[in-house]
Amino acid sequence: MAAAVSLGERGRGRTAPNPHVGCLLVKDGRIVGRGWTQPGGRPHAEAVALAEAGAEARGATAYVTLEPCAHKSQRGPACADSLAEAGIARAVVAVGDPDRRTNGRGLERLRSAGIPVTAGVEETTAGRSLEGFLMRQRQGRPFITLKLALSIDGKIALASGESRWITAEDARAHVHGLRARSDMILVGRGTYEADKPRLDVRLPGLEDRSPRRAILTRGETIEGWTRLQSPEDVYTLSDVNDLLVEGGSGAASAFLTADLIDRMLIYRAPLLIGEGKSALGYIGLDSLAAAHRRWTLSDTRPLGIDRLEVYERQRD
Amino acid sequence: MAAAVSLGERGRGRTAPNPHVGCLLVKDGRIVGRGWTQPGGRPHAEAVALAEAGAEARGATAYVTLEPCAHKSQRGPACADSLAEAGIARAVVAVGDPDRRTNGRGLERLRSAGIPVTAGVEETTAGRSLEGFLMRQRQGRPFITLKLALSIDGKIALASGESRWITAEDARAHVHGLRARSDMILVGRGTYEADKPRLDVRLPGLEDRSPRRAILTRGETIEGWTRLQSPEDVYTLSDVNDLLVEGGSGAASAFLTADLIDRMLIYRAPLLIGEGKSALGYIGLDSLAAAHRRWTLSDTRPLGIDRLEVYERQRD
Repeated sequence: MAAAVSLGERGRGRTAPNPHVGCLLVKDGRIVGRGWTQPGGRPHAEAVALAEAGAEARGATAYVTLEPCAHKSQRGPACADSLAEAGIARAVVAVGDPDRRTNGRGLERLRSAGIPVTAGVEETTAGRSLEGFLMRQRQGRPFITLKLALSIDGKIALASGESRWITAEDARAHVHGLRARSDMILVGRGTYEADKPRLDVRLPGLEDRSPRRAILTRGETIEGWTRLQSPEDVYTLSDVNDLLVEGGSGAASAFLTADLIDRMLIYRAPLLIGEGKSALGYIGLDSLAAAHRRWTLSDTRPLGIDRLEVYERQRD
Repeated sequence: MAAAVSLGERGRGRTAPNPHVGCLLVKDGRIVGRGWTQPGGRPHAEAVALAEAGAEARGATAYVTLEPCAHKSQRGPACADSLAEAGIARAVVAVGDPDRRTNGRGLERLRSAGIPVTAGVEETTAGRSLEGFLMRQRQGRPFITLKLALSIDGKIALASGESRWITAEDARAHVHGLRARSDMILVGRGTYEADKPRLDVRLPGLEDRSPRRAILTRGETIEGWTRLQSPEDVYTLSDVNDLLVEGGSGAASAFLTADLIDRMLIYRAPLLIGEGKSALGYIGLDSLAAAHRRWTLSDTRPLGIDRLEVYERQRD
């Protein structure tokens, strides 16, 4: 299943509003088909894997990161039906699909075709991979990640405004990778005006992975940019699974105040700035008690001379 | 030698202006004497180890973290002479003693008594243990550590001033251990006025290890506190090896501006504050270029729900 999750990750950032699913067909200990959701969301992972396997699919075990869909559409048949018709012997599924058109019916369809199904395998790993799609299905909004490049003392610029660069090359390359894995990137009006950021992916071979761009502003719309008038407008982004908030301080603070950040990636440079621009303004806190138990450090590791800290929002 | 360094560490915070040395006497693969510098700086580690070994010292190998002293005083004989008279077979020394009364003469004294000497063994480890004493000998000031308890975004208090507590119990206990290992703790006038901090060690069994207290102020002296009118006054602290700067923002910024911080211990709590009090004010930086390549992360580890980050000042 871990291999299927890795396959699914290949589609990340290019399949929304569809999930980036991975599918592996294994027969007699041999991989006979591998698939992942294709750019634009179709064909589905299962269809790709079945096409690769051909007649070899008969008698194979299918590992799928998300419950196969139970709904036909103009763009293709239901994957649960396709798997059954191909004669697979067994299905192993990580996460149930909360899409109301499937929601258990995919598994039912397989079982009623006489195929034994094991569900919930590596559910946490796969769920994390598909968190954007699942958040949209469950909460009606994307999974939202905030990226901040900070000094030890939490500054994003000198008092003069100088901010290039706080982090070094490795950390900046990592940000480009993060962009490639997002469906949409958002900045505030101030950052747009000050930097006219391209927000594109500048990694060799991934230049075509630049996500859509959004701006948080009550002002005019900008051609080529999606406008959000407030953080709550994320509930209107029906075709975005993973949203990356890149800054600046105003946009980050507005999203935090609205409690609409699910993960923070802190790129921490080993330097002090002292007097300068703070990463955040008012974020709705009136006591330290309210600040505690909201964030958990889930990962930290070196990125060249800098360090990545990943914090997850704890929701009960 | 590593064991001798550990022994020496037992004296840390209580031997200044003397170094906290460790000494191990080993004979036929058996430890016959162990010593560390006693509170107040005397007896020296070698004298303690020799006393424990008694006649067994004859023919033993002495492991000492610092070159044995070559100068007699009213408080005791020269350790190099004592070791020679006890009939040790060999001496292994980590760091040379830059004290002008010794400075190579301790090793000479041993060699001229016919004792083979190996110097420079585990020099880095022992040098780190004795960094306060060595800094004072070489630079004429203590080794200075800055402690900061920070949020992810580098704040030390809410806008309201509320600052208790940002870090949790484990981190605060670690700070008490840090105090016990210091000779003197300094705070700024503002912190003194606001908190009237006790700056004592509240760890079971270590209550008597509370270091001397200093205040950075141009104002009046306070009974029981050493007054520093500016950070540069650290050059007058002739009996302090390890100085801990505990805050607040003004004192920390003044020491950083004077480039008089050698190490920073950041206790990082997994929370955001947003609008609030920054850890530092102006620290003398006018460009980002000047901020880079000053600090290296030498250690980071969890302390309960918080995290310790240790940064060392890179000096060429």
